[in-house]
Amino acid sequence: MNVSEKAARAKEASYILAALAPETKDRALNAMACAMRVHADEILAANQLDLQEAKRAVEEGKMKTALYERLKLTREKLETVIKGVEELVELPDPVGRVLAATELDEGMSLYKISCPIGLIGVIFEARPDVVPQIAALAVKSGNAVMLKGGREALHTNDALAKTIQNALASVPGYPADALQLIHTREESAQMLALDQYFDLIIPRGGNALIAYVKANTKIPVLGHADGVCHIYVAPSAELETACRICVDAKTQYPSACNTVETLLLDERWPETYQRELLSTLVKNGVTLYADQSIAALAPVAGPVEDWHTEYGEKKISVKRVKNVLEAVEHINRYGSHHTDCILTQEHDEAQIFMDLVDSAGVYHNASTRFADGYRYGFGAEVGISTGKTHARGPVGLEGLTIYKYKLYGNGQIVADYVGASAKPFTHKKIGSKE
Amino acid sequence: MNVSEKAARAKEASYILAALAPETKDRALNAMACAMRVHADEILAANQLDLQEAKRAVEEGKMKTALYERLKLTREKLETVIKGVEELVELPDPVGRVLAATELDEGMSLYKISCPIGLIGVIFEARPDVVPQIAALAVKSGNAVMLKGGREALHTNDALAKTIQNALASVPGYPADALQLIHTREESAQMLALDQYFDLIIPRGGNALIAYVKANTKIPVLGHADGVCHIYVAPSAELETACRICVDAKTQYPSACNTVETLLLDERWPETYQRELLSTLVKNGVTLYADQSIAALAPVAGPVEDWHTEYGEKKISVKRVKNVLEAVEHINRYGSHHTDCILTQEHDEAQIFMDLVDSAGVYHNASTRFADGYRYGFGAEVGISTGKTHARGPVGLEGLTIYKYKLYGNGQIVADYVGASAKPFTHKKIGSKE
Repeated sequence: MNVSEKAARAKEASYILAALAPETKDRALNAMACAMRVHADEILAANQLDLQEAKRAVEEGKMKTALYERLKLTREKLETVIKGVEELVELPDPVGRVLAATELDEGMSLYKISCPIGLIGVIFEARPDVVPQIAALAVKSGNAVMLKGGREALHTNDALAKTIQNALASVPGYPADALQLIHTREESAQMLALDQYFDLIIPRGGNALIAYVKANTKIPVLGHADGVCHIYVAPSAELETACRICVDAKTQYPSACNTVETLLLDERWPETYQRELLSTLVKNGVTLYADQSIAALAPVAGPVEDWHTEYGEKKISVKRVKNVLEAVEHINRYGSHHTDCILTQEHDEAQIFMDLVDSAGVYHNASTRFADGYRYGFGAEVGISTGKTHARGPVGLEGLTIYKYKLYGNGQIVADYVGASAKPFTHKKIGSKE
Repeated sequence: MNVSEKAARAKEASYILAALAPETKDRALNAMACAMRVHADEILAANQLDLQEAKRAVEEGKMKTALYERLKLTREKLETVIKGVEELVELPDPVGRVLAATELDEGMSLYKISCPIGLIGVIFEARPDVVPQIAALAVKSGNAVMLKGGREALHTNDALAKTIQNALASVPGYPADALQLIHTREESAQMLALDQYFDLIIPRGGNALIAYVKANTKIPVLGHADGVCHIYVAPSAELETACRICVDAKTQYPSACNTVETLLLDERWPETYQRELLSTLVKNGVTLYADQSIAALAPVAGPVEDWHTEYGEKKISVKRVKNVLEAVEHINRYGSHHTDCILTQEHDEAQIFMDLVDSAGVYHNASTRFADGYRYGFGAEVGISTGKTHARGPVGLEGLTIYKYKLYGNGQIVADYVGASAKPFTHKKIGSKE
């Protein structure tokens, strides 16, 4: 089957998925989890094939060691993924919720009901655990999905997808075509052109991937390009809190997108505190980039070349600012609208910062590293969005749904509601029953 | 100022708008309404200039009469628009609503708060009343907006925009750059390229405009291309209801996008009823397109050439179907996912139809013409979306908002919540106070 045929089938399946009972979807999740346990050996054997090829590529200098590590699927990692699938069963169904209900007139009611988006294309790089994760989110939210994995994980992705497809096919009433897998770049390009079938594309990977996807499709795209997060240390910030949060936000997992990249120090914050914070960062292995005013306080490796920089390692840009407004302006100009934090004891100042900073997450006295679907309590995460439409910040099941309007009448026509003798609408809110 | 400079200023203004008090926005709406009343003569005089040029174009055969009519702004029409602006003052502020609130752990709370999208570009064709309508929706929802009107309405749009800009500038605290107007196609193309500034583009116009916009921008687009709406008449449908609803849905305003274009008759519906319904449509001036099976019941002008057709006039495609599932399949394949209706006395059958039809609006026993922001009780409408992300169906103020996450902590770091001795998250729902 070519990509267009697969997409057409998946789209057909999506209509059936939209009307599935919650129990059927939960049965499908349990079947997936069960099948992955039963076929764990085959899946891990397929992963070994990918790892052998990857090892050769690393030795030949064609692949980075970090990529090799990410490709590795251990029994423990697989079990964690399976448990994640099972945890979704416990979450409430995101579909069929009554989001609003209005009586338009006596005998005519309008219900806004959550429903799946439809067919979603997900493009990801070499992390085979993405296949079961996304498949499970798609099942729970009632979406059909086409997955395009990295070439490096070909065998693993294939084994996982086949296991999951067979499991789904075994569930009575579950449409077999709801999960599709494609492999090559050519297929990926074909997918991006099929705007008649796809309702959403989610690229999960580096900036280059996301920029490529956005430039090559008319389908809506959900994702984030950069994660240039800031911490602004206000005049009243506590020293110890500042040290703990900045070290956590920079060093706890430096390559994550919610890691802080720029530290904005209010020049009114005591200079002894500034020295102490900077030297704490240095002691924790962080390299500072800043101008001379900072170099007078702590060892600096050089000036900041670009305030948009996402280091992704233990490096940080440091700048002194006059006040909260200068901090806000810097963040809105150079940030990536991901997650930004103010450290202050002043509630009003925090409010100003949180209202004016145009980011998906605005934090008061907490590490930027909390920006994550699991930590937010969403159960799972399909990605983090820095866009300003549909979904923003960590995106869980709710971000994979939209709504439809169901209108129940008993013969009403518009002609009765227009003109000189028009009947008025009542527009009364009604209780949440469908 | 060129388009990029205007956009940069509008974007700056958007940050201020996001933090405005509701009273300031309502004051801006009242100032707008007041200024349009004061400057009504100038606005109508400007409209006369456009009309003179348009009249010449009509005489030279370069413009259709319908377009000329739409261009016309009367004192009554202007007053209706002004009243619409004033009505927005009465609506609740769509910004700052607490959409969800979760305690992540003791002393750390996460609030999901509605906020404006940011900077929105709106491209519309020759209808000058769009300027105050969109400007008012933007003010109420806290968005900055750049408007691109039709060349034909140049003078009217200019007069309206200047009046509104001056009114907004007179409101203390309201950022003067929040509303921008551009005119030419070149400027429009420049706007579509400015994805660093624009968060959303809303094209309002024909299919060609929307297709052009989608193909020429990386910015998310909200709108609808076609309005191919269906009515399926099920075996138990009442004859009189079917006649009233079909006549209303086809003839009450044939050029609207929520007008029915295809009638699906269940072949089990009594043939006498089928004859009666079709002849009622014909009596109301509707031309039928259908195959021989329908031609045996009523006068048919010819076969249906394309089931995707949006006639936009008193013409309708008619097809006989075996059952609700065939109707659903036809609608999902040939429809435009706008608004589709089932006429039936059977509640279960209606549910099947409403769950399986993948459209923004699914109706039971009511005219498709109700698909409209005003009729739904949204107060005003920025357009109708047939997309499956962000907003679907008639889009009111809520569709011009998104949300941000505000996290309040007291020094929490992620390191305490990972690893063997990880603190657990509480993830407790909390009351809706910020």
